[in-house]
Amino acid sequence: MHHASNTLLADYRRVRRFSEQLCAPLCAEDMGLQACPEVSPPRWHLAHTSWFFETFLLKPHLPGYRVFHPEFEKLFNSYYNGIGEQYARPHRHLLSRPTGDQVRQWRQQVDDAMAQLIPACPQLADLIRLGLNHEQQHQELLLTDLLFSFSFNPLAPALTSAPPLDGTTTPLSFSDFDGGLVDIGARDGFAFDNETPRHRVWLNPFRLANRPVTNGEFRAFIEDGGYQQPALWLSDGWAWVQQHDIRRPLYWQADLDQHFTLAGLQPLDDNRILAHVNYYEADAYARWAGLRLPTEQEWEHAAGQAGSEGQVADNGQFQPGAAGDGPLASLFGDVWEWTASAYLPYPGFQTARGAVGEYNGKFMCNQMVLRGGSCATSRDHLRASYRNFFYPHHRWQFSGIRLAGDLT
Amino acid sequence: MHHASNTLLADYRRVRRFSEQLCAPLCAEDMGLQACPEVSPPRWHLAHTSWFFETFLLKPHLPGYRVFHPEFEKLFNSYYNGIGEQYARPHRHLLSRPTGDQVRQWRQQVDDAMAQLIPACPQLADLIRLGLNHEQQHQELLLTDLLFSFSFNPLAPALTSAPPLDGTTTPLSFSDFDGGLVDIGARDGFAFDNETPRHRVWLNPFRLANRPVTNGEFRAFIEDGGYQQPALWLSDGWAWVQQHDIRRPLYWQADLDQHFTLAGLQPLDDNRILAHVNYYEADAYARWAGLRLPTEQEWEHAAGQAGSEGQVADNGQFQPGAAGDGPLASLFGDVWEWTASAYLPYPGFQTARGAVGEYNGKFMCNQMVLRGGSCATSRDHLRASYRNFFYPHHRWQFSGIRLAGDLT
Amino acid sequence: MHHASNTLLADYRRVRRFSEQLCAPLCAEDMGLQACPEVSPPRWHLAHTSWFFETFLLKPHLPGYRVFHPEFEKLFNSYYNGIGEQYARPHRHLLSRPTGDQVRQWRQQVDDAMAQLIPACPQLADLIRLGLNHEQQHQELLLTDLLFSFSFNPLAPALTSAPPLDGTTTPLSFSDFDGGLVDIGARDGFAFDNETPRHRVWLNPFRLANRPVTNGEFRAFIEDGGYQQPALWLSDGWAWVQQHDIRRPLYWQADLDQHFTLAGLQPLDDNRILAHVNYYEADAYARWAGLRLPTEQEWEHAAGQAGSEGQVADNGQFQPGAAGDGPLASLFGDVWEWTASAYLPYPGFQTARGAVGEYNGKFMCNQMVLRGGSCATSRDHLRASYRNFFYPHHRWQFSGIRLAGDLT
Amino acid sequence: MHHASNTLLADYRRVRRFSEQLCAPLCAEDMGLQACPEVSPPRWHLAHTSWFFETFLLKPHLPGYRVFHPEFEKLFNSYYNGIGEQYARPHRHLLSRPTGDQVRQWRQQVDDAMAQLIPACPQLADLIRLGLNHEQQHQELLLTDLLFSFSFNPLAPALTSAPPLDGTTTPLSFSDFDGGLVDIGARDGFAFDNETPRHRVWLNPFRLANRPVTNGEFRAFIEDGGYQQPALWLSDGWAWVQQHDIRRPLYWQADLDQHFTLAGLQPLDDNRILAHVNYYEADAYARWAGLRLPTEQEWEHAAGQAGSEGQVADNGQFQPGAAGDGPLASLFGDVWEWTASAYLPYPGFQTARGAVGEYNGKFMCNQMVLRGGSCATSRDHLRASYRNFFYPHHRWQFSGIRLAGDLT
Repeated sequence: MHHASNTLLADYRRVRRFSEQLCAPLCAEDMGLQACPEVSPPRWHLAHTSWFFETFLLKPHLPGYRVFHPEFEKLFNSYYNGIGEQYARPHRHLLSRPTGDQVRQWRQQVDDAMAQLIPACPQLADLIRLGLNHEQQHQELLLTDLLFSFSFNPLAPALTSAPPLDGTTTPLSFSDFDGGLVDIGARDGFAFDNETPRHRVWLNPFRLANRPVTNGEFRAFIEDGGYQQPALWLSDGWAWVQQHDIRRPLYWQADLDQHFTLAGLQPLDDNRILAHVNYYEADAYARWAGLRLPTEQEWEHAAGQAGSEGQVADNGQFQPGAAGDGPLASLFGDVWEWTASAYLPYPGFQTARGAVGEYNGKFMCNQMVLRGGSCATSRDHLRASYRNFFYPHHRWQFSGIRLAGDLT
Repeated sequence: MHHASNTLLADYRRVRRFSEQLCAPLCAEDMGLQACPEVSPPRWHLAHTSWFFETFLLKPHLPGYRVFHPEFEKLFNSYYNGIGEQYARPHRHLLSRPTGDQVRQWRQQVDDAMAQLIPACPQLADLIRLGLNHEQQHQELLLTDLLFSFSFNPLAPALTSAPPLDGTTTPLSFSDFDGGLVDIGARDGFAFDNETPRHRVWLNPFRLANRPVTNGEFRAFIEDGGYQQPALWLSDGWAWVQQHDIRRPLYWQADLDQHFTLAGLQPLDDNRILAHVNYYEADAYARWAGLRLPTEQEWEHAAGQAGSEGQVADNGQFQPGAAGDGPLASLFGDVWEWTASAYLPYPGFQTARGAVGEYNGKFMCNQMVLRGGSCATSRDHLRASYRNFFYPHHRWQFSGIRLAGDLT
Repeated sequence: MHHASNTLLADYRRVRRFSEQLCAPLCAEDMGLQACPEVSPPRWHLAHTSWFFETFLLKPHLPGYRVFHPEFEKLFNSYYNGIGEQYARPHRHLLSRPTGDQVRQWRQQVDDAMAQLIPACPQLADLIRLGLNHEQQHQELLLTDLLFSFSFNPLAPALTSAPPLDGTTTPLSFSDFDGGLVDIGARDGFAFDNETPRHRVWLNPFRLANRPVTNGEFRAFIEDGGYQQPALWLSDGWAWVQQHDIRRPLYWQADLDQHFTLAGLQPLDDNRILAHVNYYEADAYARWAGLRLPTEQEWEHAAGQAGSEGQVADNGQFQPGAAGDGPLASLFGDVWEWTASAYLPYPGFQTARGAVGEYNGKFMCNQMVLRGGSCATSRDHLRASYRNFFYPHHRWQFSGIRLAGDLT
Repeated sequence: MHHASNTLLADYRRVRRFSEQLCAPLCAEDMGLQACPEVSPPRWHLAHTSWFFETFLLKPHLPGYRVFHPEFEKLFNSYYNGIGEQYARPHRHLLSRPTGDQVRQWRQQVDDAMAQLIPACPQLADLIRLGLNHEQQHQELLLTDLLFSFSFNPLAPALTSAPPLDGTTTPLSFSDFDGGLVDIGARDGFAFDNETPRHRVWLNPFRLANRPVTNGEFRAFIEDGGYQQPALWLSDGWAWVQQHDIRRPLYWQADLDQHFTLAGLQPLDDNRILAHVNYYEADAYARWAGLRLPTEQEWEHAAGQAGSEGQVADNGQFQPGAAGDGPLASLFGDVWEWTASAYLPYPGFQTARGAVGEYNGKFMCNQMVLRGGSCATSRDHLRASYRNFFYPHHRWQFSGIRLAGDLT
């Protein structure tokens, strides 16, 4: 067995095991929760990530492999039109069968077969890496989806115990960047297709905040009537505020003293980094502060030069912490940072051939780019060129704000 | 202990046990299923029926009784505005906690306490009887709700094994009734408030079919283009057909060869009694047949003179059978029979005082009366004066058709 | 020419002319207003009523008659499925063509042709009478639809000048009726099919209020928190109140001092008869008053013995007045009175053959019966057996409340 | 009077007169048409453009000016939150008052007052120019909104007579551009704030088609099953196709032989430039053709070097023509060309102070940029830096496709 295969198999086992570890504290009843069409039940995430390996690796490449159940290809296909029929997304919570036990058996069968395939087919390494990165994405979704579904239960269920908060808020300051002609996009190592090709852009001089916005700073926005001033908001954002009578970030309780977390209802610590705001709120906050959000190119350019790490999924806290010291603290981890950039193809972008070509390109419309990873992202899933994307109204991710501004 | 209390306690134990027996074949994952706001998860039904006894009996009447959990009063209040806040009905599937084990512990605590209360307070017998009838109603809903939720799973889960069909279709014939001044409404024994007061009505001479419509007869309606002829339909019914592109009864598969049942996908037997049509379909079928649906008064008047029983929940088949012989076969059991009567108060109707007064009266608008009970109704829950009611578009109950006509 | 034909032609001319008189104060811009799918523009009413005569009378019966425009049959067919395609109801306001002038030309052509047909075909008299009653129904709708559409204009347009109020509120009292076996339904003269056949019903003894509820009395209900007490409301009614945050009758302004009328914004006179409440509000008010609504049979039985007339369309005021003296004041005119009866077929009811058979029967589901006519109904369109019907949530008709109760 | 004021007053009169000329062929009934919330009635456009001058110019700057009607400020405010309350956009068709005559009187009063203000206040020239450009934008909307509203009338009303088609389709070819560091954004002369500041961007080498896509070319896409292949579509685009069962461009009839135009139903000429596709269709067509849409920077860079003009509003045809010869035919006029660029602020963008600051900036989210003007745009309203923007699903503008590609 090659060393590369050895490493890949070890990575495979580690990533797959982490999915199951995340679910360990859950009961069978929790595993089916789905509070809205955008989120999926934990059990579905466990199944869908196995579906990826069975569909794209084992069926076409492992001779003699027999699928666990012929219906599962359709049941756990999330959106790949090239793969054929899909089960309606809003109905995923209705799949009480396969049960959790059956899904775990399926995972075991897939893992056993992958342990054969990985050493036998080194040429599939890239596709397998894609499968592992795909599973890491679903690990993050599993956490944020579960938080959302749990939030509908007045009993306030918890996945973890409350994490301690180390540190206090560093005063806000800015780093200056000269800009100019810079290169943007993935270099070496694994990257999703949407991070390619690496290409040249022109940046005006800009400055970037030393840390994300905190709960305490956002509370000041609320107390200043931020949610009541149309002049602070994008037109679609103001319509969203009015239609849903929005007055605070998702999970903040009406008293602004507590918020709902994966550790249940917890006191809102003003020193902690703010999460669960959408693009409209991020943009309005920045306007209120007399600043703006960074573009994704500015962010990536800065991240190539500095940037330290905050809370990541490996720590098991699943909450942003306090921002540390340094010029670009918490650039990675803690919260995904909304950028002012629409999610669009890079110049010269090409989708992959076949069904995995549906991975990223077809979502390049109506969404905004977020950068940096969150407290629910695995450490080895973070990188400066990573482009996450969500609709401007989405709030259920660990999404926050880092301020930027022009330099004249 | 009085004999009456003895009987009541035995009834209490029997009815409560039946709820749990119905759920015995289900896994924890099934117990949370809720496919639409109108249906509730099995676990919720088990909890809500305990809520009734805790709220209306144990809290006010058993000294020293401590509620199992202070939040449950709100979580499992279905609609009693007088009891205060309610948990949003469409979100019941999001209550993964309390788990099935906790709900069973709650049931046990309630049952233990009721075993003290029943012999101690004979004056509460009527309210306890109401609680037991309430639980029997929820047993039927548990079955029809589960069938509906299961129907969204392409794996076609089953609660029971397929029941055999005994008998064939008796030819359609009619019994004649003279009508005149007759008395309608509950006499002795337990009855819901909506069956009272007993009162006088005038009936013209009418005739009533010897049995309900069968699958085979309804198939003829479909094959004759029944779903394509607006002249057969009420205006609201035709709008419903067009909006949802309806072409067959609920659970019938597109090939008209199979239907989904609590025994999974099964062949559609033409001899079996038709179920899962709504009022619009029942009315259109009757018009197509040159006849009409009976009024609830005609039905009850006939039922007071004759009427035999088909499948009931006690048999554990949970499917209508073939109609037997006799002048009014399957009048009780098999399927609830849509009547041409809107669900309205009887002359002189008074609601009960207090929160249980919300039981029936406030639903007396926009719904139609069904009579006779179904294969999911317990035998001792059937009676000639029983008024069931659903909206005209509802199809998920075991609801069918018995034809009637005028005599001139 | 026969005397009957003479009379019919005179009636034809009078009724047709009244439609145009109602529109005389309107500008071309007003004639296209449609504020919701349930209402139609004045111009559409003028066209549709001509469509009736062209489609059912002139085309089949007047040799050589040429339709005014071949597309109009589809454009102005309201709901007769037997007549073929229809233009989508919510889009009627988009028919700027035919213009008002063209519609008036069409009316003229129809009227000229009808003047030939009426004397020539005495056997068509019943169908022509139906057409005239149909036009009178649309005259009432034209007024109530216009009021609704005008109400969206902050400039508060008016059709008429403000009518004076004569009289004050007579104190509430009741007439007693013995009930027993009584006959209900149309006798001689013109009647819609839904008023037939005349048939026997049993009525318990009851009492009926001397007059409808006034604005002042309903204000007391509001001030007593009537819209905030769920126990007063039917379940569907309470859901309606909460969903739309209802706090007062349609057209009442928030200050409860003014209401919008066909004479524009006017002071709310407590002595005037209340209008523009729906069935839910009528039912809640009656419950609050410790009474109930009458059944349609009780109402008709009482109306056969007494009943005086209030404001009718002929007066041109288009507002309810103050109730006069006498045992059953304003039984006819002023406001349609909600009954506790669902709109269902009478025993033995048969629809007419052909397309006019769609006139009434297919609406016999989900609606409630109103009796007595309103200030927008023509005097010769009123009769004791007349059954009007609307959905329980509808408020844009001149619909009010007359209280009833049981006699024991 | 200064020469500049002289010119401005002449421009004012010319632009204002053009609004009224566009409406000259319409009857009063047409002037109120509004087929969906996004479009406005012609009469509303005439009023709202006067509102701009009254609100931003006459009220604050002309001493002694008295507003025409105190309610109009609210009725005809389209979206300026800074100006206070607005009338609900979907209800604009319900404003039968003010009538067309009253709106014309208002326009006259405003024009008379502006004729005083313009020479007296040369410092207001920029704001007045903004008002005129605003009116020109509404002239285009008046035409596209009217086309949309007319399309709901089976009588197919027409504003103009059918224009002749001169010319045939030039074969598709491409111009190559080197890219590099280029400057983008408004230079001298009037520009909206969203075209500023002029700034530097890096462009890779690219090529741009010599003309827009024609009806005939898009027909080939349809006949090749373009609307049935998910792989051609963005994810949101495919959802839109499926939800609305889209099979052809807006206004194309089912037979693909005719389309609805401002000259009524007309034969679909394959040589004419395609219009009325949305961003999803434009993007799918480009993918099907193996190419892509240009970015707005590529488009503007090319337009700075060449580009000829097709049909513009001044010609009065209100339909795209055939593309002429030359390297970048019809770059201006004929159809707005969808770009691959999201509508976002330029680097360093600042909104204007006060209410006119709401003009453009607050819409910079969820929309895509279109370039070049259309057959409904006035000639003097076109320029290379002009940024139009609509949501990706919008089709009612004259919006088409110009293909682009990468050069390697």
